[in-house]
Amino acid sequence: MMKSTLKPKKSELTRSALIEEGIQQLSEHGYHGTGIKQVLDAVKVPKGSFYNYFGSKEAYVADIIAEYSHQTLATFDEFVAQSTLPALQQLKIIYEFMLTKFAGNSCQKGCLVGSIAAEIGNTFELCQKAMQSSVEDWLRRLEQLVSQGQTQGQIRKDISSVDLAELIWSAWEGSLIKMKMDGDIQSPKKVIHLTLETLLKP
Amino acid sequence: MMKSTLKPKKSELTRSALIEEGIQQLSEHGYHGTGIKQVLDAVKVPKGSFYNYFGSKEAYVADIIAEYSHQTLATFDEFVAQSTLPALQQLKIIYEFMLTKFAGNSCQKGCLVGSIAAEIGNTFELCQKAMQSSVEDWLRRLEQLVSQGQTQGQIRKDISSVDLAELIWSAWEGSLIKMKMDGDIQSPKKVIHLTLETLLKP
Repeated sequence: MMKSTLKPKKSELTRSALIEEGIQQLSEHGYHGTGIKQVLDAVKVPKGSFYNYFGSKEAYVADIIAEYSHQTLATFDEFVAQSTLPALQQLKIIYEFMLTKFAGNSCQKGCLVGSIAAEIGNTFELCQKAMQSSVEDWLRRLEQLVSQGQTQGQIRKDISSVDLAELIWSAWEGSLIKMKMDGDIQSPKKVIHLTLETLLKP
Repeated sequence: MMKSTLKPKKSELTRSALIEEGIQQLSEHGYHGTGIKQVLDAVKVPKGSFYNYFGSKEAYVADIIAEYSHQTLATFDEFVAQSTLPALQQLKIIYEFMLTKFAGNSCQKGCLVGSIAAEIGNTFELCQKAMQSSVEDWLRRLEQLVSQGQTQGQIRKDISSVDLAELIWSAWEGSLIKMKMDGDIQSPKKVIHLTLETLLKP
């Protein structure tokens, strides 16, 4: 028992490697453009064993979305928990961090959830549920920061924090589409600055 | 000569049918999810003859994007040319029209250009060029209406019309991602109303 909690089983490591490789390939090639074979080849897992780990491609992608979302939100939560800056300032830093990250990936890996949702919509129920849960988690966190910013007098109060959170999310995700298309961060940089610096002003 | 100008050639009709079918399938299944075979089957064109019409799948999709863009912008231009309403009111009607159209398609066919760009980014050069040209055409028209709205005193002047156009475009495209994922128009409806009714206010 002791051993199994200290040292992850080989199967857990393989599963984890498949998920990580899936995040990379899905971010770049999308749902239909990602082949299970390519993922298995990259991780050097024999073709036949995929279904030991995941029930189907759909279930695999749903797990990838959940894991991606979990990782991204953990970074978000850790930063917010440690920061003593005003909420609006925290928002600016979070988006600045993402801009830098995307620029480092040649702007071809934007928001995994946004790209997959734009591609497959609600056609795969497991993926839809995972994406909706991820977006809700993001929106809730954005809403909390906006609400704090309103209390701190740095964000306008004539629009609810829920609506402002959805606006920030949409403007950002839309600008990431242009980022992927153009291959540069100009659009998300402009749009998020405009939103946070000017449109949210009281 | 007379005959050929009055009556389109069979090959032109087939090409046109392939483009129309491609718009439908791409809007729903994306770039990688759309198979040439399915398109040809739907239009009842023999498999071998695809390359009589298009040089490659990439060239085909680039032509589809150009045609989709042409059709959408023609509707936009016709409406704007005939309207005597203030520019802000025109913007509201244009987005209301699109909301109704998307709702009629079970919210699974959003903006073709946005969905394809989110999926493939800049990986196919011909498609990238077609998408960029389409987005530029949209942004130019939005910018013109915003600029008119500023002159008419209904839109804020502290942000340039170019930047406001890009904000409207991004917020709309981002909210369409959520529309496809949720399968309802709540998000684009809320986001576009908030943008046009409140954020653009002088």
